[in-house]
Amino acid sequence: MIPSEVEQYLRDLHTSIQRGLAALDPSRPFTVDPWSRGESNGVTAIIEDGDVLERAGIGFSLVRGDKMPEAASVRHPEIVGKPFIACGVSLVVHPKNPYVPTTHMNVRGFFSEHAWWFGGGYDLTPYYPFEADVRAWHRTAKEACDPTGPGVYAAQKAACDDYFYLPHRKEPRGVGGIFFDDFSGDFARCFAHLRRVGDSFLAAYRPIVLRRKDTPYGARERAFQLYRRGRYVEFNLVFDRGTKFGLQYGGRIESILLSMPPLATWRYDWHPEDEARLLEVLRPRDWIGDSAA
Amino acid sequence: MIPSEVEQYLRDLHTSIQRGLAALDPSRPFTVDPWSRGESNGVTAIIEDGDVLERAGIGFSLVRGDKMPEAASVRHPEIVGKPFIACGVSLVVHPKNPYVPTTHMNVRGFFSEHAWWFGGGYDLTPYYPFEADVRAWHRTAKEACDPTGPGVYAAQKAACDDYFYLPHRKEPRGVGGIFFDDFSGDFARCFAHLRRVGDSFLAAYRPIVLRRKDTPYGARERAFQLYRRGRYVEFNLVFDRGTKFGLQYGGRIESILLSMPPLATWRYDWHPEDEARLLEVLRPRDWIGDSAA
Repeated sequence: MIPSEVEQYLRDLHTSIQRGLAALDPSRPFTVDPWSRGESNGVTAIIEDGDVLERAGIGFSLVRGDKMPEAASVRHPEIVGKPFIACGVSLVVHPKNPYVPTTHMNVRGFFSEHAWWFGGGYDLTPYYPFEADVRAWHRTAKEACDPTGPGVYAAQKAACDDYFYLPHRKEPRGVGGIFFDDFSGDFARCFAHLRRVGDSFLAAYRPIVLRRKDTPYGARERAFQLYRRGRYVEFNLVFDRGTKFGLQYGGRIESILLSMPPLATWRYDWHPEDEARLLEVLRPRDWIGDSAA
Repeated sequence: MIPSEVEQYLRDLHTSIQRGLAALDPSRPFTVDPWSRGESNGVTAIIEDGDVLERAGIGFSLVRGDKMPEAASVRHPEIVGKPFIACGVSLVVHPKNPYVPTTHMNVRGFFSEHAWWFGGGYDLTPYYPFEADVRAWHRTAKEACDPTGPGVYAAQKAACDDYFYLPHRKEPRGVGGIFFDDFSGDFARCFAHLRRVGDSFLAAYRPIVLRRKDTPYGARERAFQLYRRGRYVEFNLVFDRGTKFGLQYGGRIESILLSMPPLATWRYDWHPEDEARLLEVLRPRDWIGDSAA
């Protein structure tokens, strides 16, 4: 039911991104943990307590289910409750240095008897943002989208801003990137888009890590980073559809919660100066055009 | 629309429990933060980074809303979307010493033109449980319930076990206590029950804190405590109806998330020996009868 080239691409992407992340942090190896449950299987690769990557997990999974959970699709209510295959690669990187942004990337395909679609994207969550980094991040994302068609980057950038938003805090989660879901139509075009998104992730993220990972920091920046990671937890557990899908489906909990930070804090009504500065940069804007130059 | 004796009782309870908790940790004072938003108001009292209480928050709130959110009631769908008043006291205590359990208590009343009910209870979440503590905790809860009627403790104890359960982990949150909701009928009887629950909380919790707060501990216990606090975050953000109610209603976020721990960790697939021992004790059982003696 799943095209073999899609499965193969996603398996290869998992391996190549894991190697790319491992090269960023030679302090310890990734643990590679293959798993299977019934007709589903996957591989989780994780590094914890690294010098550069405090916690980074990247998972490949191929889930065969009898009943598509509600959270899986907005546009395809007709297949909720029907058999499906979901195959994807998902990663979250929580760097140790507060000057290096957290990032999330996901590419996935859903396949059922009567419908298929792709989804995915990547987004960036800085604590101490550098505008040059954000502009470069969005330029790479735009280059990945442009061959798919005019307006694709703009639409997926806007979808990302819409999606990664914490309504209870009235705050964006980060500076965005691209997000797409229920993406179907011409298979070759859609699959090519998925590949360009997957293949461009390291090109977008690696330079930022390399530029910022040795920035000196102290207790103030660390405290702020841990506090803002609390927002990440709130978004993922309360709002993220991927997490809801996993919990509704009764998926493998360690894989679903790979996105959790290694350490997070909550403090009552704390609004340090660093927060005001950050929130100013998080306001959705055009990171490509002249206005952001 | 809210009986004045209910509001007065809850305001007084807030003050008396705050004083009782403050007496457990003289290292620093509680911050008392009154707030109001439109026709709603409340008082949040909080201590952070205390020697005994690493984070403990107790809130009183009186919320007047135009539209009852769905999460508010299971048994009263007819008043969803109608004007309501919700008034309650809610607290969570995250002690510093891993040998002192985390606890949660809540008592609340909902009032609308056509219905009213009370809800609440208290539950205990140990990391290193002592069976004698758990038995005493449940005995105090039973004494609070017994005057309400035969079988009340048993029913509310079972409801607590049902409610504080993490389906995605297949784990109870803690060793339970009592939980009741949509509790209505004879007003005097219901209000008396609410008062006995509120008034017995300190009697149930304080002795446990006093017995365990000076237990020596090291890095192992601290790491395990922080890890298990991640479960607390998961329950509250994913499953807790009070939190959902607050987020759906667009309530005051700092009050809703008072329940969050000061510091929590996530680790991949970590199952230390201490966890097996804990999970054994968490299995719901009769903590009153001979079988537990």
